[in-house]
Amino acid sequence: MGNNAIIGQSGGPTAVINSTLAGVLQACMARGARTIYGMSHGIEGLLEEHVVNLSDTLGSEMDIELLKRTPASYLGTCRYKLPDVTQQPEVYEKIFAILDKLDIGYFFYIGGNDSMDTIAKLSEYGRVTRSDIRFMGVPKTIDNDLALTDHTPGFGSAAKYIGVVMKEIIRDATCYGNKYVTIVEIMGRNAGWLTAAAALARGEDCEGVNLICLPEIPFHIDRFLAKVEQMQKEQNSVVIAVSEGVKLPDGRYVCELSDDARFVDAFGHRKLTGTARYLSNLVANNIDTLTRSIELSTLQRCAGHLTSRTDITEAYQVGGAAAKAAFEGETGKMVALRRISNDPYQVTTELVNVLDVANVEKKVPVDWVNSYRTDMTSEFLQYARPLIQAELTPMYINGLTRHIQRPI
Amino acid sequence: MGNNAIIGQSGGPTAVINSTLAGVLQACMARGARTIYGMSHGIEGLLEEHVVNLSDTLGSEMDIELLKRTPASYLGTCRYKLPDVTQQPEVYEKIFAILDKLDIGYFFYIGGNDSMDTIAKLSEYGRVTRSDIRFMGVPKTIDNDLALTDHTPGFGSAAKYIGVVMKEIIRDATCYGNKYVTIVEIMGRNAGWLTAAAALARGEDCEGVNLICLPEIPFHIDRFLAKVEQMQKEQNSVVIAVSEGVKLPDGRYVCELSDDARFVDAFGHRKLTGTARYLSNLVANNIDTLTRSIELSTLQRCAGHLTSRTDITEAYQVGGAAAKAAFEGETGKMVALRRISNDPYQVTTELVNVLDVANVEKKVPVDWVNSYRTDMTSEFLQYARPLIQAELTPMYINGLTRHIQRPI
Repeated sequence: MGNNAIIGQSGGPTAVINSTLAGVLQACMARGARTIYGMSHGIEGLLEEHVVNLSDTLGSEMDIELLKRTPASYLGTCRYKLPDVTQQPEVYEKIFAILDKLDIGYFFYIGGNDSMDTIAKLSEYGRVTRSDIRFMGVPKTIDNDLALTDHTPGFGSAAKYIGVVMKEIIRDATCYGNKYVTIVEIMGRNAGWLTAAAALARGEDCEGVNLICLPEIPFHIDRFLAKVEQMQKEQNSVVIAVSEGVKLPDGRYVCELSDDARFVDAFGHRKLTGTARYLSNLVANNIDTLTRSIELSTLQRCAGHLTSRTDITEAYQVGGAAAKAAFEGETGKMVALRRISNDPYQVTTELVNVLDVANVEKKVPVDWVNSYRTDMTSEFLQYARPLIQAELTPMYINGLTRHIQRPI
Repeated sequence: MGNNAIIGQSGGPTAVINSTLAGVLQACMARGARTIYGMSHGIEGLLEEHVVNLSDTLGSEMDIELLKRTPASYLGTCRYKLPDVTQQPEVYEKIFAILDKLDIGYFFYIGGNDSMDTIAKLSEYGRVTRSDIRFMGVPKTIDNDLALTDHTPGFGSAAKYIGVVMKEIIRDATCYGNKYVTIVEIMGRNAGWLTAAAALARGEDCEGVNLICLPEIPFHIDRFLAKVEQMQKEQNSVVIAVSEGVKLPDGRYVCELSDDARFVDAFGHRKLTGTARYLSNLVANNIDTLTRSIELSTLQRCAGHLTSRTDITEAYQVGGAAAKAAFEGETGKMVALRRISNDPYQVTTELVNVLDVANVEKKVPVDWVNSYRTDMTSEFLQYARPLIQAELTPMYINGLTRHIQRPI
């Protein structure tokens, strides 16, 4: 049984993925791991033996506090899909040889669906080869699309960012007093959780978003234009939240209608962008109004200056729970969050089989969208509101938020 | 001499324009103005007698605190250019008749170059017609392009937002470790102050932005591509801040090369957008790298959740100084900020002739750009750094920042 632990971060950045790193790290230290390594750029870096000794680089309490306030992956990330073991067994042999050389007993991978696929494959290979290394998945994604967990660390902070920013956009858009359609594009390829979070903006001090378009609901161009025209008659400013992944009834992404360059990554994901710009031009060409499109782009996933304290805390806790489980002998599992009650909001962690999470996408329940297909229901708000509560005070130094940089 | 005061907000929103409103309002109250009105949507609303009684709607201390934290114009704004008095004297007659009817003695207009044009015209008309109404301009613009003032309220908060967000974008862009060019489009039609603020991101914990392109420096497509290619050889992640208003040597805006729809407002301003997208596609087509374009869009001018306390305080103070001056008999003036020293940072207010400010654009001194035309010099950093210092704590209620909504 190896004495050391290794941690990797994978997939898209979030504002709280480094809190999870802190949680795994500190729990491993507390449980007596001798050396704790970090993979530089996930499994891809590990394959080239690019690792850092975290016991050295994150030694002080201040380092840990800065880590919690630093967005994106401190260790670097990757989008590397492990090949099938029957086709390229040499990749697995190489990884396990490196892990043995580093005397690894505990392997943690923080990420989303694709990362859980990595954990599933490695733990299965470990089982077959009778390795005693324990492989644990730790959930992370702003998209909130992982199965078997109430929600994912990263979602709460991105949702809070979207709520705050939508309120600001609404204030900005209404102040001219003229006819004005603002279309805001929000991340989420096939699951509309983040776009739905735009519904949080409505409140005592804010009229809220006027239309929310999720990828779960087929997008009809003609009905969209009719709705916008109707809303524009009732009020001057119309603010619309649209997912980058909204699809036509025939299954094509709306952004495929635009002329933007596209790109396919190793997982076959298309780079979706230009939806809001396309729809904004469409509205401008069909309705007598001014339009503006806003892409929240990477700002929504790396806003370390505006995070949910609830999310930061849970991100840390799933890290600690993963370390605890590994040291207690578990492998091939992912830590999940289970909601005990909404009011008061209470959650606990539990373990789920990583195979049941890998490559599955959890979508927004269609009955959480109102019957007019314009807004979210109160069920969604009750689900999402607890996740955005409270703040972690950023550390401002010389006017700017302070981060910690990863070792090169 | 009228007993009442009236306040208008004009031009593009900022995160601190409502602090200035609070400053004018409270100083007018303290000096004994009987009723204080707000113009709904500036001079355009005034012409239709759309005014609100601010003594009623902003009566409590809590209202004032919320007002300071609410971005965009509480009163609503407009982009209305007053016609020449010789061509349409009836517009002036109408405005002065309305002001007399409201028993106005003090007229405040919070805005940028165009708004100072309004004050210049009204005070001149007042002088000629021997009106005793006092007309005061109060500076406001994120663009920082007003003459005769060290800087403008609104700039510091937008610059702070840009500094914070660029740091986050840099963390996000570097974490993949692959070749990646990120181009961030920042507001500023002809003056590059805000784009220059991207230089603030560099520090102990951040490698900083790699290239800054201001509208003051002619933009050569070929040199730009050569620089990016060179930088890409030296590092994987290249982050570029580009002004929406960068121009080719022949004077055309770079965004005119793109296919985006354009629009011209009453002041003849073109809507500039698509610069980053165009350049990002250009890079993708010429250099072997991934690219991403990010438009900070209205987010940079309405980020009430991330303001500079220095800016908020100065915004309030110029409002108070304007009221003081008006009550002391001044007219046709704008309050300016004069920097007394950099270290320690000290400013005072002074009055300048509004005619000397109207329709003039203050640009970034070209010798504040380094000789390679890639970055700002230390002179710029010494100028800008004091303006982003300290924070105003947002009021978070139920997870989101709280605002005050304007009366309909």
